[in-house]
Amino acid sequence: MRISRRHPISLRAVDGREIVVHNRVGPVKLVVVTTERPSTRVSRLREKQRTDRAGLDDLLDSTPLATVALIRDGHPVAFPTGFARVGDELVIHGSTGSPWMRALGAGAQAAVSVTALDGVMVARSGFESSFHYRSATLFGAFNVVPDAEKNRYLEALTDAFIPGRVAELRSSTTRELAASLALRLPIGADNWSLKVSAGWPEDAESDVAGGAWAGVVPLTVSYGTPQRAPDCDPAIPVPASVQGMAGPLRNVAPPLR
Amino acid sequence: MRISRRHPISLRAVDGREIVVHNRVGPVKLVVVTTERPSTRVSRLREKQRTDRAGLDDLLDSTPLATVALIRDGHPVAFPTGFARVGDELVIHGSTGSPWMRALGAGAQAAVSVTALDGVMVARSGFESSFHYRSATLFGAFNVVPDAEKNRYLEALTDAFIPGRVAELRSSTTRELAASLALRLPIGADNWSLKVSAGWPEDAESDVAGGAWAGVVPLTVSYGTPQRAPDCDPAIPVPASVQGMAGPLRNVAPPLR
Repeated sequence: MRISRRHPISLRAVDGREIVVHNRVGPVKLVVVTTERPSTRVSRLREKQRTDRAGLDDLLDSTPLATVALIRDGHPVAFPTGFARVGDELVIHGSTGSPWMRALGAGAQAAVSVTALDGVMVARSGFESSFHYRSATLFGAFNVVPDAEKNRYLEALTDAFIPGRVAELRSSTTRELAASLALRLPIGADNWSLKVSAGWPEDAESDVAGGAWAGVVPLTVSYGTPQRAPDCDPAIPVPASVQGMAGPLRNVAPPLR
Repeated sequence: MRISRRHPISLRAVDGREIVVHNRVGPVKLVVVTTERPSTRVSRLREKQRTDRAGLDDLLDSTPLATVALIRDGHPVAFPTGFARVGDELVIHGSTGSPWMRALGAGAQAAVSVTALDGVMVARSGFESSFHYRSATLFGAFNVVPDAEKNRYLEALTDAFIPGRVAELRSSTTRELAASLALRLPIGADNWSLKVSAGWPEDAESDVAGGAWAGVVPLTVSYGTPQRAPDCDPAIPVPASVQGMAGPLRNVAPPLR
């Protein structure tokens, strides 16, 4: 599409689609940025889609790692960050100086991906082999947690990552709070999708008859033995919060204080 | 910016920035989609940036989980997928019917995020507490693996996920190959960034003197005990490939055959 006095952009031509404009130095691709959310209907292996909120919460409460995608200068970017589900909100935090956090705080549309890799599915063909996983994507715009609530949200994050730690620590300082940006994304009725792959390989009868082994090799993320920092006096006992970090990884935030 | 016969778009006005066009029904935000890559310079905690390719390979060879971000209909989307590093390429595969795979195959710009969560850093304040991680983002456009090479790439993926499995299996059928799309992203000199957080908490002296415990709780992803599928004859021994899946998760692809 050539943009000129004779060919102005019309909404019909650009809505929801990419367009290419030409000028003297060549083509430039434009894309319409809508505030409409992408479909939350799973497009492949639809039978794996789950719509129960309990299933979503189960995933979000099992790992602190989210990957946040947004558009910056017309290019998709993605960054990993720690998060916690606090009730009906997905909460992240970072430095007030982070360009990506600032873009999100300014209302950039985001896609947040959280995945638990639960196992390797070993089928009787390469084609049928895959993974056990639980995977959620949440869409929308974050909003900035107001100053009056910031401390409560940051404490919820700390206690999700290290359960019980807040009670063992000094309070955050005014300076620390001022340097932190907390953002929350509402978990609504229709802004997320959840896909769960579980069960057994579904090999064709001919492959089952072929006699190859089939099954699943589970994958688990586990806490290991706590390592004391070199500058931490050996006389200081390992606190209850750290002693509690054993077994499979968890990420359960307490209710806001 | 109003688009009309009197105010056509000029490249100077839109390059690398968002613009808003108005028509009769209201404003529409446009953003320029450049083929220029985002900066690979880490913007926060720059001292954690690593530029050695060996460090990147070490991360990519440790987990099969990548999160791929792209722009669809003007919105950022993200999806998790299995991947393998095959030499200087990051390879993914999926169904020829997957809309996202097709968009990538058609040249959509992508950001690929791979993260290993290596531990929880327990500092003497919530502010200094964080995670041990290794995180890479790769930028660019995937290209479609040609039919003549597809089988070799798919086999490399299978052998990365389940080392040695290809030799134990029948070959892929023509129908299976036709249903699969393999995509590769070049790992170049300047299209990736790597950020590594390791080491110990860096608490202020006053916090060290406060006597709180500090250290790191490691996180490890491990293979568990293989689970035989219900339709797998108990007389069939667990194959060498599955027996080899023990200890920490790995994702090392063999050289292409």
